[in-house]
Amino acid sequence: MAGSFPLPVFDNKSPLYEQLYRHIAGAIQSGMLSPGVKLPSKRRLCALAGVSMSTVETAYSLLAAEGYVLAKPRSGYICAHLLPAAPAVPAAVPEAVPAAPSQWVCDCSTSAVDTSVFPFSSWARITKEAVYENPGLLQRGHPQGDRPLRTALSELLAQYRGVRCSPEQVVVGAGADYLLSLLLQLLPEQRAVALEDPGYPAAYATAARHGRSAIPIPVDCEGMDPEALAASGAGLAYVTPSHQFPLGVTMPAGRRSRLLHWAASVPGRFLIEDDYDSEFRWSSRPIPAMQGLDRGGRVVYMGTFSRSIAPAIRVAYMILPPELLARYQCAFSHGACTVSRFEQESLRRFVTQGLYGRHLRRTGNLYRKKCALFTQALSAIPGASITGAEAGLHFLLTLPRFSETELVERAAAQSVRVHPLSRYCHAVSPRPSTVVLGFAGLSEQKLAQAAGLLAEAWA
Amino acid sequence: MAGSFPLPVFDNKSPLYEQLYRHIAGAIQSGMLSPGVKLPSKRRLCALAGVSMSTVETAYSLLAAEGYVLAKPRSGYICAHLLPAAPAVPAAVPEAVPAAPSQWVCDCSTSAVDTSVFPFSSWARITKEAVYENPGLLQRGHPQGDRPLRTALSELLAQYRGVRCSPEQVVVGAGADYLLSLLLQLLPEQRAVALEDPGYPAAYATAARHGRSAIPIPVDCEGMDPEALAASGAGLAYVTPSHQFPLGVTMPAGRRSRLLHWAASVPGRFLIEDDYDSEFRWSSRPIPAMQGLDRGGRVVYMGTFSRSIAPAIRVAYMILPPELLARYQCAFSHGACTVSRFEQESLRRFVTQGLYGRHLRRTGNLYRKKCALFTQALSAIPGASITGAEAGLHFLLTLPRFSETELVERAAAQSVRVHPLSRYCHAVSPRPSTVVLGFAGLSEQKLAQAAGLLAEAWA
Repeated sequence: MAGSFPLPVFDNKSPLYEQLYRHIAGAIQSGMLSPGVKLPSKRRLCALAGVSMSTVETAYSLLAAEGYVLAKPRSGYICAHLLPAAPAVPAAVPEAVPAAPSQWVCDCSTSAVDTSVFPFSSWARITKEAVYENPGLLQRGHPQGDRPLRTALSELLAQYRGVRCSPEQVVVGAGADYLLSLLLQLLPEQRAVALEDPGYPAAYATAARHGRSAIPIPVDCEGMDPEALAASGAGLAYVTPSHQFPLGVTMPAGRRSRLLHWAASVPGRFLIEDDYDSEFRWSSRPIPAMQGLDRGGRVVYMGTFSRSIAPAIRVAYMILPPELLARYQCAFSHGACTVSRFEQESLRRFVTQGLYGRHLRRTGNLYRKKCALFTQALSAIPGASITGAEAGLHFLLTLPRFSETELVERAAAQSVRVHPLSRYCHAVSPRPSTVVLGFAGLSEQKLAQAAGLLAEAWA
Repeated sequence: MAGSFPLPVFDNKSPLYEQLYRHIAGAIQSGMLSPGVKLPSKRRLCALAGVSMSTVETAYSLLAAEGYVLAKPRSGYICAHLLPAAPAVPAAVPEAVPAAPSQWVCDCSTSAVDTSVFPFSSWARITKEAVYENPGLLQRGHPQGDRPLRTALSELLAQYRGVRCSPEQVVVGAGADYLLSLLLQLLPEQRAVALEDPGYPAAYATAARHGRSAIPIPVDCEGMDPEALAASGAGLAYVTPSHQFPLGVTMPAGRRSRLLHWAASVPGRFLIEDDYDSEFRWSSRPIPAMQGLDRGGRVVYMGTFSRSIAPAIRVAYMILPPELLARYQCAFSHGACTVSRFEQESLRRFVTQGLYGRHLRRTGNLYRKKCALFTQALSAIPGASITGAEAGLHFLLTLPRFSETELVERAAAQSVRVHPLSRYCHAVSPRPSTVVLGFAGLSEQKLAQAAGLLAEAWA
């Protein structure tokens, strides 16, 4: 047998014993070496393979430890009986060709932010301090997020957004989509979720992934339609009242009150208030959060630093009303918070040292200027009308002489990327001839260029 | 009317206009000011409240913007009709008394790690560089995690664990529990999940939160029982073959092969290989991952840096077989990766600069020493037997002369915290008189002290 023993061709990519071990294990797995077959003695294999005794010994003991071979006292190593492997299919996915760099001269993305004013040196300093000064942060933290950050957030939200909560109610997590997923796990009885139509695609996707039916509810000029909501039969509704995505409308107090009333009028109903874009309001003071008006414990408030700091900072938070907090504490007591504790501590320092407020003021001024510049330039296009630009980092443009497809394609021909409104519509028909334009990620120069190219495209 | 107009008592906690606005909004909301009632003129309110005209103007325009009042040309402001608010319940949860500092002299936790050798200065340097040198990382990244990190991980796993994959198959996420949740969302047809019994409590909790039935499958001295698995009817099984939690057994090749065969023999079956504690093996070389032996694309490989670096580093990864990768790319194309891009880049540098390998060697030597020290000291307790200490950061101790409860309570009386094995058991009866002991988070001195206290407790 030893004469026909399959020997490996060694390369220098990994230790010899490992190559030898893999080769023999593969031969046993493939059936080339049958169960019961005796392996060559260690000394004989040294000679056959031209390797040292320690290489063979290590390979053999590895094979024995894993059960490929059985060590029989005084008679050497015998191949073990393994079940046949399944038919081979390629396990590795071929490498995709790396994506070509963006072909867009201007990308009017709605998720980009301006990173030119990001306080890199403060952030780097804070991050470093957070690591150095808190060795204890290496161990496991509180599943809801560390208490100092939760305290800072509850104070921030009380001051800026009129949210009323204690740090106990705050749950920190890695992004708004994650928190929505977590919330759906807490609400198994809610088989249907009312979502804004047009609305945020990720909310539809998250509902579907949790096996819920997403019920699209039309959005009018004040936000989600309360009558359609009441008629939908859903017990859970998700709204973006500060700056509806994508229509850009702000929900007035009357509508807020009607939605709160909907939630409070039947036990077990909940409203998810995603306070998207609340940090940026151009025409008047921000409207306080619905959560602060909720007297029945029916509102889950959600927010994120993705837009107010940067998409890369994966920190979002939600405020659970007491009933859901109790459920959370039962269901998630085993879990760990999904945000690194160093990053939690960095963010806490950023907020409590006043750097976050300063950053919001700087970016707010910058975005206000950008919004004015871009809307003014685009308004000059004959027939164009702009809506939803009173707040936030995107708006709508309607130009009736072209279809939506024509608007998008003509812009693309000028290398400007704009999003069709229909992309965000589910059951409703989109307002015709309308596109969604984000401006935060483009410099003022780029915005002027984009406006010029769009004026040409849509002439 | 103006005479009976409710005036606020001002404090200096927030701007006057905001206090005025809140006060009037509250009065409208509560019904104290009825719909149709005319508010005092701006000038009159200035005089009544003793505030400036700009304060009143700001408050009124805020009330109008939010729909609390209607501005009637030439006749001033009229209260709007709002639906009555729901009956009041306390919205804020009272602050809990802060938890008392741990009463344990020694906590034999299974999740703690040794942070004394954490390379703080390297990590701080890398973190700072990652921020400074990569401003582009502020924008949104790839949903699966940034490609350079995925490439580094696939190379690391190929080298250390025999995993065969391309960077395309890697999904980075904020912790193993999060990735398990994500995986269940990709597998809606799997209504039942086979889990190890005894086993990892968070896996049971995650399955339940996704509405799946968790089917406990007994673990014997080689790992999950393949016959019980086959009989369970489940199409999805979760195993920890490197160092089963909590029994500490390592699955030999024969058992691995049987489980792979189970997965491959019926279309649609999948095995989740959580390669828990694979970084730490004391008695022989680590056994390569099952994923590397899988020819049918039936294994999802999972790993985390929670134990090899620290629980605070919320970075885990999974390798999806092609079929699930295709599903993932459909279902999660809208999402963002749950790990901060700065942290991804820090980790990539930590791995590719050789710091991770060095850290593993340092902690490995330290843990090996600790494991030897603690098991040796405890073996001296008459009647005590130790199992599962060939790998990983915890083991079992059995001492037949006491019941499990007695072992735990007698240890607690000496201020030593140990976990009862029954805590991790579902349908099986736990091995009697057995506790689970973690040692990684305790210093050598503390381990000696713990062993001494336990010897007294269990005398």
